[in-house]
Amino acid sequence: MKASGEDGEAPAGGPWEECFEAAVQLALRAGQIIRKALSEEKRVSTKTSAADLVTETDHVVEALILQELQTRFPSHRFIAEEAAAAGAKCVLTPSPTWIVDPIDGTCNFVHRFPTVAVSIGFAVNQELEFGVIYHCTEERLYTGRRGQGAFCNGQRLRVSGETDLSKALVLTEIGPRRDPATLKLFLSNMERLLHAGAHGVRVIGSSTLALCHLAAGTADAYYQFGLHCWDLAAATVIIREAGGVVMDTSGGPLDLMSCRVVAAGTREMAVLIAQALQTINYGRDDER
Amino acid sequence: MKASGEDGEAPAGGPWEECFEAAVQLALRAGQIIRKALSEEKRVSTKTSAADLVTETDHVVEALILQELQTRFPSHRFIAEEAAAAGAKCVLTPSPTWIVDPIDGTCNFVHRFPTVAVSIGFAVNQELEFGVIYHCTEERLYTGRRGQGAFCNGQRLRVSGETDLSKALVLTEIGPRRDPATLKLFLSNMERLLHAGAHGVRVIGSSTLALCHLAAGTADAYYQFGLHCWDLAAATVIIREAGGVVMDTSGGPLDLMSCRVVAAGTREMAVLIAQALQTINYGRDDER
Repeated sequence: MKASGEDGEAPAGGPWEECFEAAVQLALRAGQIIRKALSEEKRVSTKTSAADLVTETDHVVEALILQELQTRFPSHRFIAEEAAAAGAKCVLTPSPTWIVDPIDGTCNFVHRFPTVAVSIGFAVNQELEFGVIYHCTEERLYTGRRGQGAFCNGQRLRVSGETDLSKALVLTEIGPRRDPATLKLFLSNMERLLHAGAHGVRVIGSSTLALCHLAAGTADAYYQFGLHCWDLAAATVIIREAGGVVMDTSGGPLDLMSCRVVAAGTREMAVLIAQALQTINYGRDDER
Repeated sequence: MKASGEDGEAPAGGPWEECFEAAVQLALRAGQIIRKALSEEKRVSTKTSAADLVTETDHVVEALILQELQTRFPSHRFIAEEAAAAGAKCVLTPSPTWIVDPIDGTCNFVHRFPTVAVSIGFAVNQELEFGVIYHCTEERLYTGRRGQGAFCNGQRLRVSGETDLSKALVLTEIGPRRDPATLKLFLSNMERLLHAGAHGVRVIGSSTLALCHLAAGTADAYYQFGLHCWDLAAATVIIREAGGVVMDTSGGPLDLMSCRVVAAGTREMAVLIAQALQTINYGRDDER
């Protein structure tokens, strides 16, 4: 199998088939480790804090994924949550780049709330090629490849066709900052959508899995301020391949590094959500 | 097997064994119907609205459960969501009483958001004897029987021992009323808990399943205004049998008909949550 798409004869699965298969295998292996850590938490927490536990598992999972990928694809670049927390720059160049969140839903993980995922995205020439997301406890594997559709455990995904905000189920996340001004804006945005008559707003604690609900058509829209490129990269391909729209909260094109997003099954819905929102400025991933 | 606990020789499973077994079997059968309806929604919705669909399935499931129970236990009383919506009184007398929510998570169901449950509670002498809750899509059966523990698919449930609000994962639901004054109070309560440093607040769209997370120790507290006795009855037994506390938002004893609740793994946590909340008055189930 070829890892490069530079010649005209791509394998059946597309030019990045080998990379995609590696992502799937690693997501499944990472998921096993996370499931095991979730079941062992009570024992471990007697000697370490919840924060230690998550750090340890985050670290183990990210190291597993990056070491394997760096060995197999030594010329590729990597953007990953733990590495970024340790000071690595988040810059998306034209080189093949892996964008990895070892555990999305960190707070859930600490509490063993079973909504936790591994997210692996892959971009070339600054364009997202595929995304793989694994819901660890429900063992649901979401995949999307540019031009080849989106699937969950082999079943094709299709977004909701809803265009009316007053019939929408909307998902969001609170975001990492909890200062009074940020909280006011977060709650005010939720209030605006409920005033507009949205059927409901859900907060499940994992941006990645919320975006997978959108891809699956089980929710109509998602928005968030304060998420990172590793929360978004894989899910963006999956949503687009399921027929959905991922854009900036300004209504303009998505900027993966801008720490904000609106996604919906239809452009009409995405625009309605974007128009309803007040901006919360979280800075940019590539300017830290 | 005996359906009555009036003599001293109760069967091994306790005096209400036959009723409990009936509840389990009906919850599983109801869950099958709901799963089928969820998978068929797209087809059905071409000719009927989402509201019609949910009414139809709600009605089918409630009729299944009530008809079977009325046939087997003709002297028992019933409180059920659809019957109450049609005008039946919700009064808890000393008679053996079934308290049934055929589909908890109605809005989720309409959107096929896979967090939907059947809830069957049972009270005698105004005391809850057992609760059975079935998470339809994840096929998780939660049960609790007074004095006999709480289980999920055979695995014993145990609440979180957390007493510190600043380390808590808190669950809530928005509630049915969306007028500006009610929404302000709902959002203000969420703000108070986040200001107090709660790790996170989750809104999953099913009171019953949120309460099951509490019983399983995967969340530390739950509160809500605007839920009904059929959302609470089964879950209350399960939480108590898992070692948790269910109380009124005033900090006093639970009143099943008061449309409000605080539940937590520990009394300390429940009191902290109750103290942080502003009351939203939804009236009483037994005064409609």
